[in-house]
Amino acid sequence: MAALDYGTFEFKEILVSLDSAVLIVTINRAKQRNTFVNALADEIIQVFEAADRDDRVRVVILTAEHTAPAYCSGADISNGWNVLFRPEDDAEGESAHRDTGGQVAIAIYRCRKITIAAVNGHAVGVGATGFQLPFDFRFVWEGAKLAFPFVRRGIVPEATSSYLLPRLLGHSRANSLILSGATVPATSRLISNLYHEIIPKREDVLPVALAFAKELAANTSQLSVAYSKGLLQHPGDAIEENHLLDSRAIKLLGSGEDAADGALAFKERRNPKFSATLSKSSSPWYPWWKALDIRHRRAKL
Amino acid sequence: MAALDYGTFEFKEILVSLDSAVLIVTINRAKQRNTFVNALADEIIQVFEAADRDDRVRVVILTAEHTAPAYCSGADISNGWNVLFRPEDDAEGESAHRDTGGQVAIAIYRCRKITIAAVNGHAVGVGATGFQLPFDFRFVWEGAKLAFPFVRRGIVPEATSSYLLPRLLGHSRANSLILSGATVPATSRLISNLYHEIIPKREDVLPVALAFAKELAANTSQLSVAYSKGLLQHPGDAIEENHLLDSRAIKLLGSGEDAADGALAFKERRNPKFSATLSKSSSPWYPWWKALDIRHRRAKL
Amino acid sequence: MAALDYGTFEFKEILVSLDSAVLIVTINRAKQRNTFVNALADEIIQVFEAADRDDRVRVVILTAEHTAPAYCSGADISNGWNVLFRPEDDAEGESAHRDTGGQVAIAIYRCRKITIAAVNGHAVGVGATGFQLPFDFRFVWEGAKLAFPFVRRGIVPEATSSYLLPRLLGHSRANSLILSGATVPATSRLISNLYHEIIPKREDVLPVALAFAKELAANTSQLSVAYSKGLLQHPGDAIEENHLLDSRAIKLLGSGEDAADGALAFKERRNPKFSATLSKSSSPWYPWWKALDIRHRRAKL
Repeated sequence: MAALDYGTFEFKEILVSLDSAVLIVTINRAKQRNTFVNALADEIIQVFEAADRDDRVRVVILTAEHTAPAYCSGADISNGWNVLFRPEDDAEGESAHRDTGGQVAIAIYRCRKITIAAVNGHAVGVGATGFQLPFDFRFVWEGAKLAFPFVRRGIVPEATSSYLLPRLLGHSRANSLILSGATVPATSRLISNLYHEIIPKREDVLPVALAFAKELAANTSQLSVAYSKGLLQHPGDAIEENHLLDSRAIKLLGSGEDAADGALAFKERRNPKFSATLSKSSSPWYPWWKALDIRHRRAKL
Repeated sequence: MAALDYGTFEFKEILVSLDSAVLIVTINRAKQRNTFVNALADEIIQVFEAADRDDRVRVVILTAEHTAPAYCSGADISNGWNVLFRPEDDAEGESAHRDTGGQVAIAIYRCRKITIAAVNGHAVGVGATGFQLPFDFRFVWEGAKLAFPFVRRGIVPEATSSYLLPRLLGHSRANSLILSGATVPATSRLISNLYHEIIPKREDVLPVALAFAKELAANTSQLSVAYSKGLLQHPGDAIEENHLLDSRAIKLLGSGEDAADGALAFKERRNPKFSATLSKSSSPWYPWWKALDIRHRRAKL
Repeated sequence: MAALDYGTFEFKEILVSLDSAVLIVTINRAKQRNTFVNALADEIIQVFEAADRDDRVRVVILTAEHTAPAYCSGADISNGWNVLFRPEDDAEGESAHRDTGGQVAIAIYRCRKITIAAVNGHAVGVGATGFQLPFDFRFVWEGAKLAFPFVRRGIVPEATSSYLLPRLLGHSRANSLILSGATVPATSRLISNLYHEIIPKREDVLPVALAFAKELAANTSQLSVAYSKGLLQHPGDAIEENHLLDSRAIKLLGSGEDAADGALAFKERRNPKFSATLSKSSSPWYPWWKALDIRHRRAKL
């Protein structure tokens, strides 16, 4: 694996390496049980935003050391919830705060590359929300204990989990998990559908996810992935609007170099060689959706 | 169990008791196969609206006698559908009618406490829709036969089931159940994901649900539950809007007394002692969503 | 089975027959591996639009010969993607193209009768999207291999699949299937919930689906089916709006002839005899939803 040079970045809370177009991001806080702190959040956001723009990267995996006490054991609240808040927000009133877990979730959700969470340990709170739900695929260790314990701590589900979890699993399971706050194994019927694959041995989770990632990196079009994610996340409000959107995307991509080789490779029964990149080959039409501006404007200079 | 004093209420179609912050509502029409009539609907609406406002109540369970012919066998249509309609609505035209099952469903759905359906018998029609779908959790007897038979009776799915069922299970299962009108066992792959737990013995459904309810009543924050339900039901239209909503809720609740004890209890490895109540501790920001006014305005005085 | 007389239609790519109110549409391109071409799309659209208006038809089944190489092996791209596009669209710019798979999907989705896909063979691309997802029910052969391979071909999911698949299965499974482009068996946990029934023998898929269809044709109300599909597809934006919609539909249908016999049949413990038809008995209120106009207006005469 080659060390990745992201210019001036100096990561402390994560390890980052690039392996055949797969960027592997490893949470590096095993001694702190891989708890979630603002410094970790900042680095995760930086690396997913960089991966989004880096044409070399086709897949991003988030994982932890498989010998760590947990994949991520949530926010460190041993000194209370103030760890989540910034004093300067208090002066701005009730609507100034921006949940750090949500900022992480949105950075991952918006990343136009394939994203994979390789959950090779227990996961609680933001370890189950922001570090899992915004990903395209989740691989999990069979023995992992998972919890959304918010109602048992006096707070609410965060990191956009009240948006993402019902969309992923339906409200029957989302309500069960969030309103019970229960700790469940990955194999529980309440949560197993969240996972692309459930893996018996903890040490196998990353290797299995990495092999899956490399195969996708080699055989999928970067443009196809980005536009497909766009269609899945922003399908339009009705079947008719979706028809207009996917028609336009089909026309755009179907006329491009990756589609040409995709068809030829299919005919010649070989693997495709996709060369289109987001920086060179995307269209001004993309993104076609509007997004709410989530920045807070300070009241004073 | 203590008898509950709800002032002037005199329930005839239901039995109501309070057991350690868990309100148990039992349908009391076993001799009529627990059929759904307007008087039953009125009492269910009254008790869920009262439970919503009663700080003592943290969980509400709806159940039936486990020896009854059914949990609820639907509307009594032995004299036709007019049982559903009111003559005064006819003079008002086609848009005056308000489905009684839907009014029940909305009262349960809007209740800010944890709600549980303990389905200890067969359930048909509104017994499967209004008396199950708006709840947070459903426990069911393994032997229960369940049906949404509307297309086989010449009517349509009611009690907001065409909204709730696809959200709970996805459209693949919702279409199968509603458009076939089939009668299925609780263990059928078409419906089993609707249930938090499927219980072998009919007489065990209420005790299992009650134990679950008491544990939640003792260890969850009333405020967390209400705000979490609000986020799950009204998550906003996109991930960005959800981020603004859960950020504000985290800030509000994270600064409160329940969150303080929640963090301390976690540190001290003890159960929390939550004291915040909706009547004392909620914020004017809640509810943050708009709701359509569903009342019909009579044409004349 | 009686040959169906649809006036001037002369189908070449499909076989069509009517069997006790069940219209069976068989893809008739086994020698071309049942590939998808514009001529096939045109005939499918014609037959579903005709079935929608033909009061004799209560259920429509789409299937293939069970001895064919595939149920549908997708678009024939052996000469590239231009097979999908029309030269006259190119002059109109990027937003003129309308995906043929999507036009098929919308014709099936809008058909007010019960629709069933009897997937008795492998299905790839539009064979897995347009020829499966817009249907009410899907029956599948246990040995069928299924794939949404778009990201592996340099294009995007089409035929409104980015709208329909997440609604049917939830985003966890939809993302897995579409973003991996993997080929999976019908029994895979990634896709099995898409199917009403999974059938061991390939030759049994159509007979099982047909028996199911005949039972529904005999015992469901044409009006109930159409209005129930309307409620499931257009439930309103919130529970309150759904309450207004299903209340009005209940009032309309509950006052009609099918509901009257439905109640009487229930009382007399016999099968109902439904006689209402869409052409005679529907209401001007239906459809209650607005739909985007998806036609392209040519720039010049």
